[in-house]
Amino acid sequence: MIQINSFNRSRFLYTKAFIVFFLLLAEATSGEAQQKPSVVVEDFKPASTNQAGSEYPQVNSEGRVRVRIKAPEANNVQLNINGVKYPLTKSSDGVWMGDSNPLDEGNHYYGLVIDGADVPDPGSTYIFGSGAWRNDIEIPARDQDFYAMKNVAHGQLREIFYYGNASQSIRHCFVYTPPDYDKDLTKRYPVLYLLHGYREGESGWGNQGHAGLIMDNLLAEAKAKPFIIVMENAGTTGDLSKRGGLAGFDFGVFEHILLEDVIPYIDTNFRTMADQAHRALAGLSMGGMQTKRITLANLNTF
Amino acid sequence: MIQINSFNRSRFLYTKAFIVFFLLLAEATSGEAQQKPSVVVEDFKPASTNQAGSEYPQVNSEGRVRVRIKAPEANNVQLNINGVKYPLTKSSDGVWMGDSNPLDEGNHYYGLVIDGADVPDPGSTYIFGSGAWRNDIEIPARDQDFYAMKNVAHGQLREIFYYGNASQSIRHCFVYTPPDYDKDLTKRYPVLYLLHGYREGESGWGNQGHAGLIMDNLLAEAKAKPFIIVMENAGTTGDLSKRGGLAGFDFGVFEHILLEDVIPYIDTNFRTMADQAHRALAGLSMGGMQTKRITLANLNTF
Repeated sequence: MIQINSFNRSRFLYTKAFIVFFLLLAEATSGEAQQKPSVVVEDFKPASTNQAGSEYPQVNSEGRVRVRIKAPEANNVQLNINGVKYPLTKSSDGVWMGDSNPLDEGNHYYGLVIDGADVPDPGSTYIFGSGAWRNDIEIPARDQDFYAMKNVAHGQLREIFYYGNASQSIRHCFVYTPPDYDKDLTKRYPVLYLLHGYREGESGWGNQGHAGLIMDNLLAEAKAKPFIIVMENAGTTGDLSKRGGLAGFDFGVFEHILLEDVIPYIDTNFRTMADQAHRALAGLSMGGMQTKRITLANLNTF
Repeated sequence: MIQINSFNRSRFLYTKAFIVFFLLLAEATSGEAQQKPSVVVEDFKPASTNQAGSEYPQVNSEGRVRVRIKAPEANNVQLNINGVKYPLTKSSDGVWMGDSNPLDEGNHYYGLVIDGADVPDPGSTYIFGSGAWRNDIEIPARDQDFYAMKNVAHGQLREIFYYGNASQSIRHCFVYTPPDYDKDLTKRYPVLYLLHGYREGESGWGNQGHAGLIMDNLLAEAKAKPFIIVMENAGTTGDLSKRGGLAGFDFGVFEHILLEDVIPYIDTNFRTMADQAHRALAGLSMGGMQTKRITLANLNTF
């Protein structure tokens, strides 16, 4: 036993305080401590974004992602969620596993890093986002019911190819038609042109954005009136980074394409209400900037 | 110099013969020799199946695939084309590259192996084939013109969700409608139900099968009359391998689904000619086996 006199006790308390301080400092500055909290709720389930039959990746009730990959010869494997990297641990059978911190609910882009190589996780499906086809993972949201797949009448998501004179190329877009579109062939519909965000594409709203499911559910509960949604490519995929990124992007190019290619094609090939009162433009993030610029410059169109 | 007398010359020839024999044996049994032929035509170009803007993978005029992946800490990286593995070579900047042997023209499934981990190549896009969403690569075919993207009138590839009573689940299928489908709303069309192969899915004919482009091009040249194509999931994805593979697969299940869910849904929701004379069934590989069984058992339907 150590006997503590008043002097020694005081020094002991100082020493103890310093040790606690440095332990806290070490914990605060250590990636390991940030990335591997001591308590993980062990209620992981396969994510809804998994490939059919894939047991991993999994998500728990805290919103943590757990990944698993067999890489028997690898030295270092990480989970990369939007640039935040979490270390994985190797077991004796060559399988690497690891968890993320709890994530915000909703959709996250992610991948694996195997010995320095950024690669997709073969357990997940693929969507286009952040400039490439890549993995996403869905953290269940408290309000996920509004975009859930239900036994209601479903609209169609139609993949369209057509030649655009303004863009001088074959364009690719997706068009959502509401469930009753092919029932009453005399009916005409308002149109929403729905733009994606920076470095996303024409498939984003239909895939990870669940635009069709949201509309189907709203219509089933009579919370919306049916309309057509047109999801085009607003021109920021591919080599935008070489053109100076978002700051160097000329919004005028897509304005011409939208007015001269997209809207005329849609009004010719779908049963639209082809006037200003029944045509809307909206967008996410950069699509919102495009919406502001294009609508205010074309108040007779939108 | 070595002087060769008759005895020595004989021994020399035997030795030489043995050396040649063992070199040939080594070449015949070495994966390295088989996989790295000495002459490679250096006219590689990015594949048509690449992600937008990706320089790699590439294909040359011999049909070789060249892949590239940055994996600075990796010990061993391979290109895996349908199970045939080709070694990659690392350069000083941590980039691995390598070529395959010449491949048959058309579509091939492939991936990378990084230190024992089977992962996709992030340079390519993804299709569903061989039981999972994975990479494919297109080796240009001599007759590629018939499925090329052209400035012709294009049909629509429609993604459909509907509840099936026989399958007691929400079903997912793709329907190709010909370019004139939304022009004359009184016209009705024959229907082809087009089945996929073993461990493929409802997206295969529309994606890597280019069914829509083939029809668009045939119709543009008046080589076909317009019809609807329905591409459903014939039930062999997911956990089929756990059910005993193809041999253990009960074709009767999909027969019920096709007759009780799929055909009634399509005849109700599309302008079909809903009789035996205008309804056909066809399929690739296992889909051909299903076609034979289901049509012969239902001669009044197909």
